[in-house]
Amino acid sequence: MDKIKIDISGVLPFVSNKQIDALEPKALDAIKKLDEGTGEGNDFLGWVNLPSVISSEELEDIKKTAEKLRDKCDVVIAVGIGGSYLGAKAVIDALSGTFASNSKVIFAGQNIGEDYLHDLLGFLSDKTYGIIVISKSGTTTEPAIAFRLLKENLEKKLGKKEASERIVAITDASKGALRKLSETEGYKTFVIPDNVGGRFSVLTPVGLLPIAVAGFDIHALVEGARTMESQTHQPGAENIAQIYAVTRNALYNDGKKIEILVNYNPKLHFFAEWWKQLYGESEGKDKKGIFPASVDFSTDLHSMGQWIQDGERTIFETVLSVESPQSTVKIPSDDDNLDGLNYIAGKRVDEVNKMAELGTRLAHIDGGVPNIRITIPSIDEKNLGKLIYFFERGCGISGYILGVNPFNQPGVEDYKRNMFALLEKPGYEEQTRNIKNRLKN
Amino acid sequence: MDKIKIDISGVLPFVSNKQIDALEPKALDAIKKLDEGTGEGNDFLGWVNLPSVISSEELEDIKKTAEKLRDKCDVVIAVGIGGSYLGAKAVIDALSGTFASNSKVIFAGQNIGEDYLHDLLGFLSDKTYGIIVISKSGTTTEPAIAFRLLKENLEKKLGKKEASERIVAITDASKGALRKLSETEGYKTFVIPDNVGGRFSVLTPVGLLPIAVAGFDIHALVEGARTMESQTHQPGAENIAQIYAVTRNALYNDGKKIEILVNYNPKLHFFAEWWKQLYGESEGKDKKGIFPASVDFSTDLHSMGQWIQDGERTIFETVLSVESPQSTVKIPSDDDNLDGLNYIAGKRVDEVNKMAELGTRLAHIDGGVPNIRITIPSIDEKNLGKLIYFFERGCGISGYILGVNPFNQPGVEDYKRNMFALLEKPGYEEQTRNIKNRLKN
Repeated sequence: MDKIKIDISGVLPFVSNKQIDALEPKALDAIKKLDEGTGEGNDFLGWVNLPSVISSEELEDIKKTAEKLRDKCDVVIAVGIGGSYLGAKAVIDALSGTFASNSKVIFAGQNIGEDYLHDLLGFLSDKTYGIIVISKSGTTTEPAIAFRLLKENLEKKLGKKEASERIVAITDASKGALRKLSETEGYKTFVIPDNVGGRFSVLTPVGLLPIAVAGFDIHALVEGARTMESQTHQPGAENIAQIYAVTRNALYNDGKKIEILVNYNPKLHFFAEWWKQLYGESEGKDKKGIFPASVDFSTDLHSMGQWIQDGERTIFETVLSVESPQSTVKIPSDDDNLDGLNYIAGKRVDEVNKMAELGTRLAHIDGGVPNIRITIPSIDEKNLGKLIYFFERGCGISGYILGVNPFNQPGVEDYKRNMFALLEKPGYEEQTRNIKNRLKN
Repeated sequence: MDKIKIDISGVLPFVSNKQIDALEPKALDAIKKLDEGTGEGNDFLGWVNLPSVISSEELEDIKKTAEKLRDKCDVVIAVGIGGSYLGAKAVIDALSGTFASNSKVIFAGQNIGEDYLHDLLGFLSDKTYGIIVISKSGTTTEPAIAFRLLKENLEKKLGKKEASERIVAITDASKGALRKLSETEGYKTFVIPDNVGGRFSVLTPVGLLPIAVAGFDIHALVEGARTMESQTHQPGAENIAQIYAVTRNALYNDGKKIEILVNYNPKLHFFAEWWKQLYGESEGKDKKGIFPASVDFSTDLHSMGQWIQDGERTIFETVLSVESPQSTVKIPSDDDNLDGLNYIAGKRVDEVNKMAELGTRLAHIDGGVPNIRITIPSIDEKNLGKLIYFFERGCGISGYILGVNPFNQPGVEDYKRNMFALLEKPGYEEQTRNIKNRLKN
């Protein structure tokens, strides 16, 4: 029983099997487009067979590089934003201990926080550290600022040569600022494939190197993804990625505008953030797309629970349910039983958690919230690899069903253009004049 | 210039001043209901004048108790969920260093995670710790389980007497399991006022004691709230809570169904979680209410940015903008300038952050996203106190304008009832039979 499963019985009180099945032709067409590369955005389909084509040599190279960084450094800073951040963060958080303050990997370049960078430099002051800098161009503002600061700091500490042995760049194969710098400084490098977009890049060195540095098994992660690649290749009633894609589109067509990704294990918090980018950036365009939100239950049953139970009936839930937790804790008995908990004494904490989940599922369905349930045997590398590929495949299918190009992100440039104009970046002179005029009025 | 300000010019391309002003009569009526206690939910208006009535004796008592806990313990576990968790977490995170692994306060009882509790007990194994247990009844499942485990563990470590000197209970004045236990064991206690609901309780001992234990100035926090209480007492064009309440209702009436609370400083991440409970639980009922979501920018411009720029035009943004960061970091110059960043060399990182904010504001307004901007001078106790009361007051007004009882949360009970039935809790025999029958089919 080590399969990821999907249960859509909780949506059938809201959309019928007929409504869902009506989308099958579109799903088949979407799968064809993905496999034959005949749809929009077909320059970015490298992720489709990535798990099966990644070589064991490349995995070994990543693993060896990670081991070297682990040996040489107290901590390694992974510098990246968006897809160059969320995949690694999601997997590392899911696999790490909750209070692991000795994590080997911390992140930077995912914001422009002056306090964040100040606190980071303070934290690093008594540590030997390494840097993994992840950027296709090397000029994305957030990681470029963080890398400038960290590189300068590290070189001051250790000298240019020693620093260069602790810096690894993941970037374009041949062009761009970071490629050029890496050649000048002699950094070890890995390549971001041209045909894999940021949000689909966790199974490239972008995600794999930080995950390996954190001490986790990237072979098992890729193996899991490979299993799912083969399980979701053929269209049909067994294809769980297809089922997910058609079901959420049927719900959307029926007026369910917000999908809430629910977990009952807080270690999956950042997995939901990764999922938000994957689906939000792929589908939120042309004035359409499901709005992706997320909650950690039962925590957020005590904050968002009221809204979900009784607010506008324009939402549905997709629950990530983990069958077995990593650890065992039983609820102790108590002679006085003032808190009245003796009725569950001797039970594992997770048994209560599971009843909270089931009780919530029933209550929310009764309240008008369709429920998709995705079951994962446990949180480990193999299952996370499966889950990642499941959501990627589902996203490609879903975006084509929706009728958008799931692989571009034109809207992300708009704020950058304004920011560069405001900062008077060379080459933006005309935009600078325009935006200054606009702000005068 | 130490005032919190609100700027609604970014919503006027979408809803007119006339549409906003049309809600003024409802706002005046709402303020009257809050002040005279004549509206629905008037049993829970204790928060309205809480900042001005809390006595300096009570604050001193909290402060002394916190100092004692700090002296006696390496770390203190605050056990609570919902309103007994999010307020303290929001303030402590906002004021703490980003990488402060030596925080005096950690949280438990805010989930039913078996891994979480296992990791927590492991983390505590070599530490002397104290417990603040926060629960009106003492029988809420999540905190009751965590407290049972922690209490048993602490008593085994130190013996009953020593343990009892490190446990503080915040609970009902006279009734309930936790009050009874506290009397039996001789715990120091503080009272959760009867007329203050969980999501409005951060300025009672519920929030103040953990915040004081973390080392922050609760006098300044309450003073800030008191200033805002007096500033938002009178209705009128200067009342920023009223402006916020009418503006968001005007947007909602105009089809803007999702409010995204935006920060540009990741230290405010949990402030948004607190805000989600405040607004979601107060307004999400009777099949209506704005759906509260949140993002950390610029991080999430690289995940949710695409959706926000180009997705369904049913959202608006409320931006928390912090004028001055706590620290100073300047962008270094670089001779080679391969990353092309020399045009901003010498600038503070926050200057770039501010241009990202302004550039985003303009891009999102152009893309069809109304923008409310709330400016805070800096992140410190006084300003957080102001911000808390601002949002509380705004919430009371907004909920009455919407036409709901902003102070109940009937929907939160539904999942609990099912969970108790599934766990065969004594007293739930009939529900147990019903739910088992239902699951058979």
